[in-house]
Amino acid sequence: MKKLSLFLFLFSGIIVQAQSILSPSKNISLEFKLSNEGKPTYKVVYKTKEVIKESTLGITLKDNQALENGFSVLKQETKAVNEPWNPVLGEQATIQNKYNQVTYYLSQKATNRKINIIFKVYDEGVAFRYEFPKQESLNYFIISDEKTEFNLVENHKAFWIPGDYDSQEYAYNETKISEIDNSKLDLNNGIGVKSIASQSRVQSPLMMKSPNGIYINIFEAAVVNYPIMHLDVDTKNYSLKSNLVPNAIGDKAYLQTPCVSPWRTIMVSNDARDIVGSKMILNLNEPSKIEDTSWIKPMKYVGVWWEMHVGKATWDYAGSQNAQNAADGQLKPSGKHGATTANTKRYIDFAAKHGFDGVLVEGWNVGWEDWFGNWKENVFDFVTPYPDFNLKEVNDYAKSKGIKMIMHHETSGSVANYERHLDRAFELMQQFGYPAVKSGYVGRIIPRGEFHDGQTMVNHFNFVAQRAADYKLMVNSHESSRPTGYNRTYPNYIAAEAARGNEFNAWSVGNPPMHETILPFTRLLGGPMDYTPGIFEIKMSYYDATKKEQVHTTLAKQLALYVTMYSPLQMAADLPENYERHPDAFQFIKDVAVNWDNSIYLEAEPGEYLTVARKTKGKDEWFIGAITDEKARKTEVKLYFLTKGKKYKATIYEDGKDADWEKNPKSYAIKTIQVTSNSKIKLNLANGGGTAISFTLVD
Amino acid sequence: MKKLSLFLFLFSGIIVQAQSILSPSKNISLEFKLSNEGKPTYKVVYKTKEVIKESTLGITLKDNQALENGFSVLKQETKAVNEPWNPVLGEQATIQNKYNQVTYYLSQKATNRKINIIFKVYDEGVAFRYEFPKQESLNYFIISDEKTEFNLVENHKAFWIPGDYDSQEYAYNETKISEIDNSKLDLNNGIGVKSIASQSRVQSPLMMKSPNGIYINIFEAAVVNYPIMHLDVDTKNYSLKSNLVPNAIGDKAYLQTPCVSPWRTIMVSNDARDIVGSKMILNLNEPSKIEDTSWIKPMKYVGVWWEMHVGKATWDYAGSQNAQNAADGQLKPSGKHGATTANTKRYIDFAAKHGFDGVLVEGWNVGWEDWFGNWKENVFDFVTPYPDFNLKEVNDYAKSKGIKMIMHHETSGSVANYERHLDRAFELMQQFGYPAVKSGYVGRIIPRGEFHDGQTMVNHFNFVAQRAADYKLMVNSHESSRPTGYNRTYPNYIAAEAARGNEFNAWSVGNPPMHETILPFTRLLGGPMDYTPGIFEIKMSYYDATKKEQVHTTLAKQLALYVTMYSPLQMAADLPENYERHPDAFQFIKDVAVNWDNSIYLEAEPGEYLTVARKTKGKDEWFIGAITDEKARKTEVKLYFLTKGKKYKATIYEDGKDADWEKNPKSYAIKTIQVTSNSKIKLNLANGGGTAISFTLVD
Repeated sequence: MKKLSLFLFLFSGIIVQAQSILSPSKNISLEFKLSNEGKPTYKVVYKTKEVIKESTLGITLKDNQALENGFSVLKQETKAVNEPWNPVLGEQATIQNKYNQVTYYLSQKATNRKINIIFKVYDEGVAFRYEFPKQESLNYFIISDEKTEFNLVENHKAFWIPGDYDSQEYAYNETKISEIDNSKLDLNNGIGVKSIASQSRVQSPLMMKSPNGIYINIFEAAVVNYPIMHLDVDTKNYSLKSNLVPNAIGDKAYLQTPCVSPWRTIMVSNDARDIVGSKMILNLNEPSKIEDTSWIKPMKYVGVWWEMHVGKATWDYAGSQNAQNAADGQLKPSGKHGATTANTKRYIDFAAKHGFDGVLVEGWNVGWEDWFGNWKENVFDFVTPYPDFNLKEVNDYAKSKGIKMIMHHETSGSVANYERHLDRAFELMQQFGYPAVKSGYVGRIIPRGEFHDGQTMVNHFNFVAQRAADYKLMVNSHESSRPTGYNRTYPNYIAAEAARGNEFNAWSVGNPPMHETILPFTRLLGGPMDYTPGIFEIKMSYYDATKKEQVHTTLAKQLALYVTMYSPLQMAADLPENYERHPDAFQFIKDVAVNWDNSIYLEAEPGEYLTVARKTKGKDEWFIGAITDEKARKTEVKLYFLTKGKKYKATIYEDGKDADWEKNPKSYAIKTIQVTSNSKIKLNLANGGGTAISFTLVD
Repeated sequence: MKKLSLFLFLFSGIIVQAQSILSPSKNISLEFKLSNEGKPTYKVVYKTKEVIKESTLGITLKDNQALENGFSVLKQETKAVNEPWNPVLGEQATIQNKYNQVTYYLSQKATNRKINIIFKVYDEGVAFRYEFPKQESLNYFIISDEKTEFNLVENHKAFWIPGDYDSQEYAYNETKISEIDNSKLDLNNGIGVKSIASQSRVQSPLMMKSPNGIYINIFEAAVVNYPIMHLDVDTKNYSLKSNLVPNAIGDKAYLQTPCVSPWRTIMVSNDARDIVGSKMILNLNEPSKIEDTSWIKPMKYVGVWWEMHVGKATWDYAGSQNAQNAADGQLKPSGKHGATTANTKRYIDFAAKHGFDGVLVEGWNVGWEDWFGNWKENVFDFVTPYPDFNLKEVNDYAKSKGIKMIMHHETSGSVANYERHLDRAFELMQQFGYPAVKSGYVGRIIPRGEFHDGQTMVNHFNFVAQRAADYKLMVNSHESSRPTGYNRTYPNYIAAEAARGNEFNAWSVGNPPMHETILPFTRLLGGPMDYTPGIFEIKMSYYDATKKEQVHTTLAKQLALYVTMYSPLQMAADLPENYERHPDAFQFIKDVAVNWDNSIYLEAEPGEYLTVARKTKGKDEWFIGAITDEKARKTEVKLYFLTKGKKYKATIYEDGKDADWEKNPKSYAIKTIQVTSNSKIKLNLANGGGTAISFTLVD
């Protein structure tokens, strides 16, 4: 074992040791040293196996000497931390935040500048960040590049999406590191705006599996006032380098000391469940800055939304998507507008009847005639409804039925426009009692030249959460940069899309069956995802016989997603009439919880399967979701987590015997059995299938 | 005379004539034709003299075929217009808007696109714009360049400043066109942010004088949703080409049909007074969009401001200009902070005692420790006062004295930050009854990569005026793009700096004596300027014996500027104690009006002298301001404009016999005489001097 070896060398007149720090479990070892040139380097060892080879750390500055080499260690500090905390909403009531920390205080003689590198070693991985302390020789500065390396030791299998500065809405590729190549991708995938600048750049979280079965995940946490980090891949040497998303003029980040970089994270385990269940990213974020969080509540909702995706209705009033008509006052309703007062009342009735909390309405406000794709700045004002949507009438009706309305703010990427209307938009929400907003960022960003993943946009998304908190509003952003645990700090940032959601199944090549088995290892590490599951009419030919598109799961797997895809904000995305034809299966969506006391990942293999059990918040009630990829799967789960000595009714929603995501996706079966903590349940998952189970106490 | 010649040629199968249109006075002729390649061209003739040779018009588009050639004329329409209107505030009660108009409807066969070119010919010049009508073949488009030429016929004398995308705060250069060369400028001039991209690019308004005494001015009007136009100078051929200010990625303007370009204007006369007194730029703007304008009122004000410029006080609380202290909560007052409650009350007392309307306070809000120069986004929040400035106490006190407070919003160029705080900032103003805001834009623009003069910023300045109107607030912007008459459309956009103001005299090489004789021919054509005249302690050595800086005028000229530099918002910029030592001279500032029924330019020569008489709004009272450049000047003015048969007391504030802007600037004399409309007054202006006269009825 290398982890405890100490060797001495001489640099800059002071003696520097290669330093090791261990995880609490002692399975992971982090070693830091300065190279002969005074470059900071680190490596990571898992048990006896090196997983990150010696890798350098550094920052280059615009108009200034780089913070890359010539460093000496002034001092180091270590501490052991164990700080459990209780998330406002979450997968479990209490989260352990347990790690060993070491801080290296570095000094660069040539510039008289100081930086600190802080490592935290958790049982499931290593995190580190750059700290720029207050100092006379570094005040305002511009980062032109971050030179963080992650030198892998082998040609791992990787689940990757291209390093696109504007979108993460890709299906995952599963290849060897050596085979990563964006130029070979089929980009006819339904993504509106794509910005892929390099052939061998991928996004994080990057989930990998080594040839000998070690799972490695590279990601980041607490991206605040900093751009998103992508990864440049050296496909020959299996080396990854940080690539920060630039702004319009090529700069990466504008900072002022004292400040810190986000955390760079390397999770590692020989058990995939350690990664999928990790709360490391959340732990690395600051505690809640909202004092009174009583107004932050989970929500299950329906909405005027899927009918636009399947082509039954339009977002825009005129149905022409031609704003020139609007300019001339020639906007004539087409009769297909979804967000009418009458149609919204229908959804409110449905939500009330079936016990949902909320109703989302998209397309309620003027502007959709020239929605996106034109790089137009002033599309929406976020306060003016179409003539056929009566804000007051809708909200009075919702209130009378005990339903909360969810506001929708599509920005079409024009963030400048959104920000200058934000207070007014939120005031309107407050006036009508909307507790939450779904925001959208389809389209090229304005300020023009900025990318979805740059510092400006990261700041925007965080700013919206902060400002929403002023009005006690919850935020669910779509097409935002992917979250990195900021929902710990602003728990009202309740969910985000920021990955390829279910909607792509309606009108594109869709999401392959393995898609939902990867997301919990990648996107969901950063925070809840509004995936919008629950599609019962799987094939779009139901709406239009000429359509070939379909959801790439069985119906039962759509149910299981409510458990496998954690979010305190969950949509029942399909149309009311589609649910009403399947009241037995719909019962699971009505029953399933969205906030939890505990979550146990029972089985996990990225790209193949996932089985998770969750206990409802404050109630002796459990749910299981089990999903598989395109391959059928038989398995058995032990119910040891149920309360000893209690009897539960298990209602099992499973794939029918003849079910198949492609050939027969709507075949499902429902059965109930009685179980205890000593029971086992056999699961039979079809190709692209899943099983959802509810466990309720038998009195 | 060429103007009526008709010649025929064949193009695109249709017959196109070279077309002439005359000004109402018939002194100016505009001729339009298509070239053999179907390029639109025009020329301008003044009396018998060609002043603009055949010059082409065109627009190039990003990702699209240029709108440059291959055009044919579909039709043309002419009309004669005479529409007098009454400005809310202004130099005269009624403005004549009288011109002959011709519109050429052009079609580009290759693209099936249509554009119109509209010419308006006024007695003092020609204006034209591009119109992009609604059409299927052109909807959203991006302008990559505008190819408007102004081909001059001779090597005129020009008053020019460099084509800087971020600043117009330059002193004017007076050279031949052939001698224009930015590379020879001394840029040690006190301007904070400079962006000069070309050696031979100048700004408009470009004031010129031909060798045979014709005055020509090239400018633009109604710049709305479009960048500012600078001018690329061909110093050999005396040709000017439009240069639109780019955005962060090099694009010029994002437009959607139907839309129009700003007006391009060419004023021409053999009498310089026709240009300095022209209302053409205002006329070319849309009428007021504010229905109730009763709350838009002229203001004379003092403020906590000049004491910072002369170094007696600081804007920031800590006096360190080091924001790192603020971040640590180590902000300790230095005792030099200007914007204290006590000091503000002193100004309120002074304002009340001497009949001023308002008091401006700069430095009242937190953030000044890292004001500008660091490209920092979130410097100010526009609502949080420093601990020593009590908003409520100050405003209660002001109210008790009948004084209106003027809010100050320094943005340090961070427009993104300002816009997201704008509603809250304006709400605070409303809460405390502030009727007006002075805004500042020192520093590089954020969104980064944008320039002060780009489309984004033009839209910002106009947006602020619009949003201020929602709150019934008046706006006075500093370091904005220079106005182009938008104060006709939003009369609450009451003034702007947008040129080299008096402040530069306090801490830089300053403004040469000719400066104020040029501004009325350039900057002021676009709208009122908050020049901040009235400095009595001319030499900065008064404050610090080591200082060499000084105001480059006599004291009497500072008085005259209140008349020559039109603005309905005028500051008495010097310190109260400086005025109190000169109560006799100060009386003029107390008396002078800021809103007028009539203005008569008596004498004018750019770069040399200006004499103007103005009649107070709604009162039989007149004022004269006369200024000269560095050369002393004797002249005589006839008082024919006074009401016939009435007697007036003329109080004459003039340079002392030994006055000289450099050697003895504070020497002045005051005398009173009785005059009638038959009287003449001899004026004696010292080097860099001036005369100010008030005429009040003798009962």
